[in-house]
Amino acid sequence: MTAPRHIFYISDRTGLTAENIGEALLNQFGNLEFKRSTFPFIDTPEKAQAVVEKISQAATASGQRPIAFVSVVNTNIRSIIQSANAFQINFFDTFLPDLEKELHTEAVQAVQGHHGIGDTERYDARMEAVNFSLSHDDGISDKNLKEADVILMGVSRSGKTPTCLYLAMQYGIRAANYPLIPDDLESSDLPRMIKPYKDKIFGLTIQPERLQAIRQERRPNSTYAEIRTCRSEVADAQAMFKRHGIPFTNTTDKSVEELAVHILQACKLKRRF
Amino acid sequence: MTAPRHIFYISDRTGLTAENIGEALLNQFGNLEFKRSTFPFIDTPEKAQAVVEKISQAATASGQRPIAFVSVVNTNIRSIIQSANAFQINFFDTFLPDLEKELHTEAVQAVQGHHGIGDTERYDARMEAVNFSLSHDDGISDKNLKEADVILMGVSRSGKTPTCLYLAMQYGIRAANYPLIPDDLESSDLPRMIKPYKDKIFGLTIQPERLQAIRQERRPNSTYAEIRTCRSEVADAQAMFKRHGIPFTNTTDKSVEELAVHILQACKLKRRF
Repeated sequence: MTAPRHIFYISDRTGLTAENIGEALLNQFGNLEFKRSTFPFIDTPEKAQAVVEKISQAATASGQRPIAFVSVVNTNIRSIIQSANAFQINFFDTFLPDLEKELHTEAVQAVQGHHGIGDTERYDARMEAVNFSLSHDDGISDKNLKEADVILMGVSRSGKTPTCLYLAMQYGIRAANYPLIPDDLESSDLPRMIKPYKDKIFGLTIQPERLQAIRQERRPNSTYAEIRTCRSEVADAQAMFKRHGIPFTNTTDKSVEELAVHILQACKLKRRF
Repeated sequence: MTAPRHIFYISDRTGLTAENIGEALLNQFGNLEFKRSTFPFIDTPEKAQAVVEKISQAATASGQRPIAFVSVVNTNIRSIIQSANAFQINFFDTFLPDLEKELHTEAVQAVQGHHGIGDTERYDARMEAVNFSLSHDDGISDKNLKEADVILMGVSRSGKTPTCLYLAMQYGIRAANYPLIPDDLESSDLPRMIKPYKDKIFGLTIQPERLQAIRQERRPNSTYAEIRTCRSEVADAQAMFKRHGIPFTNTTDKSVEELAVHILQACKLKRRF
């Protein structure tokens, strides 16, 4: 047995881009084990030199050279990192020269703005959407429903709240949520309050066994968490979606990221940034 | 004047990885204009063929070949996309062969799991952290403060809530927030309630002019939104942080992503996934 390979994510910003693509690539080697470290904000020669040392130590300790995913804009810092004893995947070095040729333009070394830093407009749109989701999560008002870009509807604990928040954070979408309570599910009609907004409703459904596990965690041994309750609520909700032609998706095997993109697409929502 | 170059983000998953690295690269050409489209979930030959057509149309309409950032795991789908009339940046084709050599392992074509899909543990940790943030946002209880991984402290509208939510979503961190109200700021001591948890407090400060703009948006022409109020609250909060040796950062020019990574690092927080 060899020790797990050490992965270094190195960035002069947050490291999110490096982690993102690194994980997508490493996931293609699902059977291997890795040990991960992220080094964000590596924006001075001293910090870069310190990372080079850490890589050396990791190489010596494990007997294998680490793998480094490097997302560093500054060429000076990048050249210091390049001296490290690691197998390096470097996005800017790899792709920028060809992009420069294709665009007939020389790249600037812009660290600022890389992720939208200092972009007040984006921040405002995001804050507004997050505040919308949060204020909405307290209780549903007609005003809120009217102003929403999309209304997620589903039984309690079907994944509405994290999806709303992700839509707000990542895309500035104002997502309201409407929890289907047993009273709503008994009727064959849509709940009165959201009926006027039918065209912006998107349904979330979930596997009853998974729902039971989630509810059991929150209210152990309640009727609410019983598999019977979960099965009948989910069945009623799905029947409602179908009856009224409401698009819906099953959240069971989807990440919040996937749900959000799926909803963007299905509801043809326009991102605010 | 030439028309803005058309950018295609193409993925068999959410497209977030493609967008992420594409934006980082395009940002290096800050003076150019681009027109962006994302095509997520391109996971059948038919969908891939449809994207190829769209690229052709965009090339014809604009008189320039589009630029495509391609994050597609399936080699069959990828080869269809490759036939498109675009300058292509393809992460898997570029990096996988060398990674395979370095790891002495052949890559599997794993679409699943790429972003943590179907990873119930991750979902649970995330839900728990999001629920923690949300329940905490309603009001502060000693139980919540005790269970928090970190407590963000700052004046009203200094950016605590979105940062808490992002920490929860992205890293599974349980972040509580403590809003400093004028009563707290008048005292030279730490607020009684959070005093026992001093070691996990992180302070947020903000430029008074920016704070005024944000507050003005929410409560126009209130004392709360006056520049005088903002200045004195921010000064008092900063004095409190310094007096008690609480680490803090200025949120004014930072994105929520940056704030979160900064706090992770400053507080040596351990991600839950």
